[in-house]
Amino acid sequence: MKIQLNENYKQLQESYLFAGIAKKVSAYSQAHPDKKIIRLGIGDVTLPLTPTVIQALQKAVGEMAVQETFRGYPPEAGFDFARQAVVDYYGRRGTKLDLCEVFVSDGAKSDCANLTELFGDNPVLIPDPVYPVYLDSNLMCGRKVTFLQATQENGFLPMPEGLTGEGYLIYLCSPNNPTGAVYNKEQLTQWVDFARRSGSLILFDAAYEAFIHGDYPHSIYEIEGARECAIEICSLSKTAGFTGTRCSWTVVPVELTAGGMSLRDMWERRQATKFNGVPYIVQRAAQAALSPQGIRECQGLVDYYMENARSISALLDKKGIFYTGGQSSPYIWMRCTGNMDAWTFFDYLLENVQVVGTPGSGFGACGEGFFRLTSFGSHEATKEAIARLDSLL
Amino acid sequence: MKIQLNENYKQLQESYLFAGIAKKVSAYSQAHPDKKIIRLGIGDVTLPLTPTVIQALQKAVGEMAVQETFRGYPPEAGFDFARQAVVDYYGRRGTKLDLCEVFVSDGAKSDCANLTELFGDNPVLIPDPVYPVYLDSNLMCGRKVTFLQATQENGFLPMPEGLTGEGYLIYLCSPNNPTGAVYNKEQLTQWVDFARRSGSLILFDAAYEAFIHGDYPHSIYEIEGARECAIEICSLSKTAGFTGTRCSWTVVPVELTAGGMSLRDMWERRQATKFNGVPYIVQRAAQAALSPQGIRECQGLVDYYMENARSISALLDKKGIFYTGGQSSPYIWMRCTGNMDAWTFFDYLLENVQVVGTPGSGFGACGEGFFRLTSFGSHEATKEAIARLDSLL
Repeated sequence: MKIQLNENYKQLQESYLFAGIAKKVSAYSQAHPDKKIIRLGIGDVTLPLTPTVIQALQKAVGEMAVQETFRGYPPEAGFDFARQAVVDYYGRRGTKLDLCEVFVSDGAKSDCANLTELFGDNPVLIPDPVYPVYLDSNLMCGRKVTFLQATQENGFLPMPEGLTGEGYLIYLCSPNNPTGAVYNKEQLTQWVDFARRSGSLILFDAAYEAFIHGDYPHSIYEIEGARECAIEICSLSKTAGFTGTRCSWTVVPVELTAGGMSLRDMWERRQATKFNGVPYIVQRAAQAALSPQGIRECQGLVDYYMENARSISALLDKKGIFYTGGQSSPYIWMRCTGNMDAWTFFDYLLENVQVVGTPGSGFGACGEGFFRLTSFGSHEATKEAIARLDSLL
Repeated sequence: MKIQLNENYKQLQESYLFAGIAKKVSAYSQAHPDKKIIRLGIGDVTLPLTPTVIQALQKAVGEMAVQETFRGYPPEAGFDFARQAVVDYYGRRGTKLDLCEVFVSDGAKSDCANLTELFGDNPVLIPDPVYPVYLDSNLMCGRKVTFLQATQENGFLPMPEGLTGEGYLIYLCSPNNPTGAVYNKEQLTQWVDFARRSGSLILFDAAYEAFIHGDYPHSIYEIEGARECAIEICSLSKTAGFTGTRCSWTVVPVELTAGGMSLRDMWERRQATKFNGVPYIVQRAAQAALSPQGIRECQGLVDYYMENARSISALLDKKGIFYTGGQSSPYIWMRCTGNMDAWTFFDYLLENVQVVGTPGSGFGACGEGFFRLTSFGSHEATKEAIARLDSLL
């Protein structure tokens, strides 16, 4: 064909990190069908949906079977009942949102990535290491990215010190994926103050807020002034085990404007034009998950996983291996042993003990020499993985 | 803020067509709470999901409640069982696809719109009138659009005659939304030949193929050479009543390359990076809908709606009002009476008989003076609407 393709795709690494891991594991699995692999790699949950959510799904499926209660096209931004459930969820933590600022969608990944469409040519600040979607989605549309180095020295929490430009798009993820580092109120206040001073926009990924333990902000809107400089993305994937059920939301405060355009209105237009809403049955499930009873059940999921985090931490403590995370995050971010680089360590664990983790370098250059383990396995699988790692490391 | 926003949004009309209609209807409804509105506007289905689909949903919800059968992240391109169901569906009509060419997604709207990201700066050809998403999604990324005029004279089926450029992105929709016009094999062959000759890419929207009656191609791949020049988008929204359940697919043949890049690989990368797959339970529903029994049940839905199309057609015949569609399409495309323009006619029907249709001008300049009615209502509501229209027109 003689059409022009999007040449920016050539800037991307060959495969999306997790797709790349899946391929390696699949190849190993086919070559060694007798070996039982334990996956502590991709951050995927393993516990089933909770009873309240299942009941809501069953009821909604029943409604779809009967003409009187059947639902067609959902509103692109979400049914009011689902948007209200999000508003109430924030409200119970003292954060006030308006219904029109909440956009229900099929995933934090979609929203993070699709939000790039609203912007022109701005300098982009992305932590390193971090969830790869921020970088890839900006590369795909040809934007220039500067990394905020997250290292052992700064506790994996880069701060705005030394930044002198203005009009940045700033990605923050707290608790951080993959390092598990969490910004406290004072640190987030510094970021919000910087964003307001420099006319920048913070894209705040709160997907792991349910894992926060202790006095850390769950939402950027707990910081004064954040409504003037921040979009927040959150998800039920980790909170309620929705990785296979797909529901998230994005908050775009009405205060966000630039050059006379409203970001909320633009996002509404984007979603109405390029998205057709989340399935009715899934929105009912989301409403149930966010109800007080639903959240109590979700806390049970979080508690279960955090027991895994404690077990993994205990092993690393015993071995004297440096790590962060596992306190307010389902992730353990450990230093690779034997001075191995991250992919070598990945292969080392896969080949010797069939434990799959995520190479830190897949999250950015600063992740080299580190490795991410998740606590999303079952207790049994995690114990087995710990025993195997204990024998190897 | 001092960030740059995507200025292309200023090229868009104020609101997405159907969102605009919804607002007008809502305002009327609030002002006249006693009036019963009949909606033959947005192309939304009204019959419930079929028994086979409901059973599949119930079973899948049950699986999500139990750890052993719980499913986390779906593959971004769809579970193999869902992709295979699409391959088999085409196979039963004699069209051979490979599993890796089928991408399951949450909606034809999303795919149509998101596909624009894969391209550089190419001339775009879009029929007028047509589904507004093609135009809006291209305006959003700043591409120049040329319209293919669909008029009463060419039977609302524009052909490539007179086109002399190359490397076009060509949108075709057959059966057409809104006019209901369908390309026959000879006409589609002319388009495929033109695309191959000019190095162009056809984006073929087959969302209404289940309504085809008679010897028309259901898929562009029934035309020789189409695999070298066409992407196809199709959906269960209208076929299986999935407007509120959300599942569609896009076919990107491996033959599609330009400048050394593979469109299939690019779309796989796009979806892996910016999308997290369709809910497991919905993919099971889609598999069920596409099974031989599922398709038999879907045919029942189509037959039901087409009875409405015949009733609406009969009224227009009686009144001597020009129209097309309603044969291989759920849409009736009628000329507004009394020389009214389309929005005036919209208001006229809403205010006098509370029947909501879609103004033809919302689908493009050539749609001015026309009006779209859908056959997706219940028999009862449609009969009532026909009686009201009979009294007014």
